[in-house]
Amino acid sequence: MTELLTSPEFQMSLLLLVALAGYLIASRINQSAVIGLIFVGILVGPSALGWIQYTDFVSSLAHMGAVILLFVIGLEFKLHEIMQIRNGIIALLGVIIPWIGGYGLSILFGYSGTSAIFIGTALTATSIAITANVLQELDQLQTNAAKVVIGAAVIDDILGLLALSISNEAASGSVDGISIALMTIKAVAFVVIGAAVGVLIISRIIEYIDETPFAGKYPEFTFIFAMMMAFVYGILAETVGLSAIVGAFIAGVSFNEIKLKQGHDLKEGAGYLQIIFASIFFLSLGIMVDLKALTSEIVLFLVVLTIIAVVTKLIGCGVPAYFSGMSIKESCIVGFGMAPRGEVAMIVALIGLQKGVINQGIYVTIIIMSLLTTMFTPLIYRNCFFRDCKNGVNTP
Amino acid sequence: MTELLTSPEFQMSLLLLVALAGYLIASRINQSAVIGLIFVGILVGPSALGWIQYTDFVSSLAHMGAVILLFVIGLEFKLHEIMQIRNGIIALLGVIIPWIGGYGLSILFGYSGTSAIFIGTALTATSIAITANVLQELDQLQTNAAKVVIGAAVIDDILGLLALSISNEAASGSVDGISIALMTIKAVAFVVIGAAVGVLIISRIIEYIDETPFAGKYPEFTFIFAMMMAFVYGILAETVGLSAIVGAFIAGVSFNEIKLKQGHDLKEGAGYLQIIFASIFFLSLGIMVDLKALTSEIVLFLVVLTIIAVVTKLIGCGVPAYFSGMSIKESCIVGFGMAPRGEVAMIVALIGLQKGVINQGIYVTIIIMSLLTTMFTPLIYRNCFFRDCKNGVNTP
Repeated sequence: MTELLTSPEFQMSLLLLVALAGYLIASRINQSAVIGLIFVGILVGPSALGWIQYTDFVSSLAHMGAVILLFVIGLEFKLHEIMQIRNGIIALLGVIIPWIGGYGLSILFGYSGTSAIFIGTALTATSIAITANVLQELDQLQTNAAKVVIGAAVIDDILGLLALSISNEAASGSVDGISIALMTIKAVAFVVIGAAVGVLIISRIIEYIDETPFAGKYPEFTFIFAMMMAFVYGILAETVGLSAIVGAFIAGVSFNEIKLKQGHDLKEGAGYLQIIFASIFFLSLGIMVDLKALTSEIVLFLVVLTIIAVVTKLIGCGVPAYFSGMSIKESCIVGFGMAPRGEVAMIVALIGLQKGVINQGIYVTIIIMSLLTTMFTPLIYRNCFFRDCKNGVNTP
Repeated sequence: MTELLTSPEFQMSLLLLVALAGYLIASRINQSAVIGLIFVGILVGPSALGWIQYTDFVSSLAHMGAVILLFVIGLEFKLHEIMQIRNGIIALLGVIIPWIGGYGLSILFGYSGTSAIFIGTALTATSIAITANVLQELDQLQTNAAKVVIGAAVIDDILGLLALSISNEAASGSVDGISIALMTIKAVAFVVIGAAVGVLIISRIIEYIDETPFAGKYPEFTFIFAMMMAFVYGILAETVGLSAIVGAFIAGVSFNEIKLKQGHDLKEGAGYLQIIFASIFFLSLGIMVDLKALTSEIVLFLVVLTIIAVVTKLIGCGVPAYFSGMSIKESCIVGFGMAPRGEVAMIVALIGLQKGVINQGIYVTIIIMSLLTTMFTPLIYRNCFFRDCKNGVNTP
């Protein structure tokens, strides 16, 4: 019986069953599926029902899920749509100001310098997935403000992940100006070279293979090849000190323009893998939350941190949007649109927890702050800016 | 560095890279991808290069791959296309005669009774995947003979898996007539009730969910639900003593007629999962082969077993096909078409090895016998029966 309960078949059934419950909850509370999945993860995790533990199996699938998720998100974007100066400035200020806000607040609450660095970093990155999903649900994806939000959110994510690498190094030892500069150069070089090699060489190789009779006989070859590259980019990113998911994201972006005649569709195929494995990833984020760590002091910190998280994005992104010539309403849409934190903040928290530089209390605070900011934007959007919009159908 | 090498990202990169090599080899030797994958698995496994070990991670992914593979194969078939009396008779004789051949030969070579039971069982099941793939490559899938081959191969697979369950029980202790009868009743009941519940209840539930606005908002829900059911059926099959993959296959067959309006396409989605995970499954079969177990005595047994494997299928399936009114040529096409063993034989071998009832020598013999029968049919087909056929494009 124990053998059956620890079998991959049983574990998968249970994870997917729980994931379905997450969707049902998300639908009940009219939220993105991500919220439902994390919530149900908390519920079945060790701190509540204790049905699912964070085993090696769950951890492996969750890791794969994070890589696949960021690869698929990357596939949605064209390099030139993202790389615009306005988006760059909004993103940069939208990283610096929340970082300062998070760091300052943490120091004020008496946390150590390394913890404060991780908390600051967790406030930097906007969730591309959640923002895009909300705008899609509201049928607003083609508006000017939406395009700025998404472009800036993507750059913001890269910057946030750079900040994560730096925090990571900072946590491992003392960091001086030179090592930060070196890390930044390595990270930027990885992004630039990775994207260039991806667009100019690997994409061409995939398209070349796709033209051969070989690909006609084995149309799955190019799909396996592309998925392998997502993981390879993940490892390469890790070897230069970035997170594996930055690598997967860069792989996705650089494969965006691949057109296959014989091979299976990359976006479609990776999207199906994402449905299963990203669900498990979001569940795992909840499973790792230890609710017992939520003391009254932590709750106060959580509330203030969440307010700081929203306000610093509103200022950091809304103000430069306004000065770039957008209306006040559009600037507010941009500012609030950048507020949801989601997966990157959670990954920051996870890495911090696993490295032992933040404790369970801070981990839980970041996860819940991330959930709250994510729920806040749809509420503001629906009730203030897009009151008359129909609740469009979300077709990923 | 070790941390990086054991990370799921690295393991996945390596497995997928090796899988790509398997495809290239398959193409070079003009064989099905399965052959290439197993071959390269042997090459990178512990007995040759030693790059990949059969770790828990590989084992978990391979288990998932086997479930997904049989689920996808199940999705290709309609219940009424399979359940025809002619197919049933061809399948039944195509199980009994090879079983007797394998059992008798093993006893003749001095193997123990339990080993002989497993070897006999390994000879029973035709590989649906390989046969269908070969007929598709030859562009012969719509012929009368092809339809009989596939229908009979499916029933044959179920019978083979029943035989596996019985062998399994036989290996665990002494089996009497009553316990065999009980097992058969349990297995048949599972198949019948599982298919009925799948077709009449679960398929309807999935289609009902698909009609709701909920599925419009979360089109991935029905896909996750169906994939979960594949694993749930797998566990249920195990609890009644069948292999998990029989369960997954029954789930697939009973979901064959589901038509979704809003949800993601099941066949397509499961097919993408299969591309990645079934490749890992086939690789893992090779990884588990210990070439050092191939002694000269074993080689002789292997050659005779392979001949017996082909001849018993040719007689067991070809003769009833002839008596059911098919021409000699068509009957030979059916007979040789049933010869490839493939995945079920390999699963039998794997279970036998893991239970400790067959040794590495027999395991390797079964795997290689399976590979040889699989390579034999395309050769015979191309050179004797379909000499003038173009080598059609295989588009799964």
